[in-house]
Amino acid sequence: MEIQIGVAKINKYASSESGDTLEVVERPNGGLSVVLADGQRSGKSAKLISNMVVRKVISLLAEGVRDGAAARAASDYLYTHRNGQVQSTLNVLSIDMESRTMVVTRNNPNPVLVAHGNELKALEGESQPVGLRRGTRPVISQRDLQPGLTVATFTDGLPFAGERSGAAMDVRAEFEKLLAAGHQPQGVADGLLAAALGLEKNRPGDDISVVVIGVLAEQADEVRRMWVRLPVS
Amino acid sequence: MEIQIGVAKINKYASSESGDTLEVVERPNGGLSVVLADGQRSGKSAKLISNMVVRKVISLLAEGVRDGAAARAASDYLYTHRNGQVQSTLNVLSIDMESRTMVVTRNNPNPVLVAHGNELKALEGESQPVGLRRGTRPVISQRDLQPGLTVATFTDGLPFAGERSGAAMDVRAEFEKLLAAGHQPQGVADGLLAAALGLEKNRPGDDISVVVIGVLAEQADEVRRMWVRLPVS
Repeated sequence: MEIQIGVAKINKYASSESGDTLEVVERPNGGLSVVLADGQRSGKSAKLISNMVVRKVISLLAEGVRDGAAARAASDYLYTHRNGQVQSTLNVLSIDMESRTMVVTRNNPNPVLVAHGNELKALEGESQPVGLRRGTRPVISQRDLQPGLTVATFTDGLPFAGERSGAAMDVRAEFEKLLAAGHQPQGVADGLLAAALGLEKNRPGDDISVVVIGVLAEQADEVRRMWVRLPVS
Repeated sequence: MEIQIGVAKINKYASSESGDTLEVVERPNGGLSVVLADGQRSGKSAKLISNMVVRKVISLLAEGVRDGAAARAASDYLYTHRNGQVQSTLNVLSIDMESRTMVVTRNNPNPVLVAHGNELKALEGESQPVGLRRGTRPVISQRDLQPGLTVATFTDGLPFAGERSGAAMDVRAEFEKLLAAGHQPQGVADGLLAAALGLEKNRPGDDISVVVIGVLAEQADEVRRMWVRLPVS
């Protein structure tokens, strides 16, 4: 098998700083985690918040702490440091090689989309962002790592796309269409972002981050690869 | 402009764990850093060491600490925790958007290759691995972020390739050839690893990690992208 992760990310139009933070970390017992947070407000202050949340989760995951415990810790940490005045969404997608599962951790009212074969499900049980209350818990679900499994998570800039002109993006339909066309995870992430940018006429009204993780049956070779592309002005 | 990072990484033959650790972190004042360490010995114990070093550097960089200070801290930390008994190489390649430079930090006897246009230079001033002595300092060099700049760093598995059969890899010549053929950073990283695997008959005698960062003139769009590929058995 082969795991592929595709990420596509853009700032709010005319904003030099994204309020979204995304990091990938290696799990000490095997596998990888992708951590995505969207801090309250936009620009520099949102970046500080989302960065604080992601750093806390990453450092705990790197020490072998379970995803759920790391998310709770990040919530209590933000609550304590900002007196419950500031919130952030938090999503963690983990490839956990100990349990051979994909672990989806949500502190985010927005759904996470899970496809397997022809079946598409939105994980959309009620879920609170971190930082506002003591005792905030994430909603966690686990799936066996099987070929054909594809999971997409995103910040609220994606479903917000088009809303200002009265036709908000149907993320689920777009995801389904991209999978049906046979795209690999990076193609799905790029396609979702491109659809959003189309609706926003290339001037996104919010930061948008999209993460897609897929499990492929085939493994070309035993090489791990990572490719990063960073536009700079 | 556009920054591209390409990484290719493989374990020593028949080893389930790599002693090399590589992580990418966002810099709080703009840009990215890639941190690569190769722990002494191989397998689980080497992984623990390299992971300890990379975690320390990453957490400091994420707090805005300068690369050189982070490398010194990682050396003192490893020295203190392992009584100077264990060493690790450490390389940091940073895209620093504050100074608009590429910062190359070496605690590694192996060179870092820097190409710009037709000029190729090996940064190979004497440099000690971290963890063995108090006061170990990195060797640092900085280059302006200009289109055409390409930097390659790697763990010693790369130049070691072919050594057992009496024809060690000429990394510099291979790098030059791949650049001349017009490859982008991921293609250069893949090409260097492929050349090593050819010399090792696909049974590498050591963990091999290759990182290539390039500055391209053209910027296709304003989307940041990351693509990860993880073979799992």
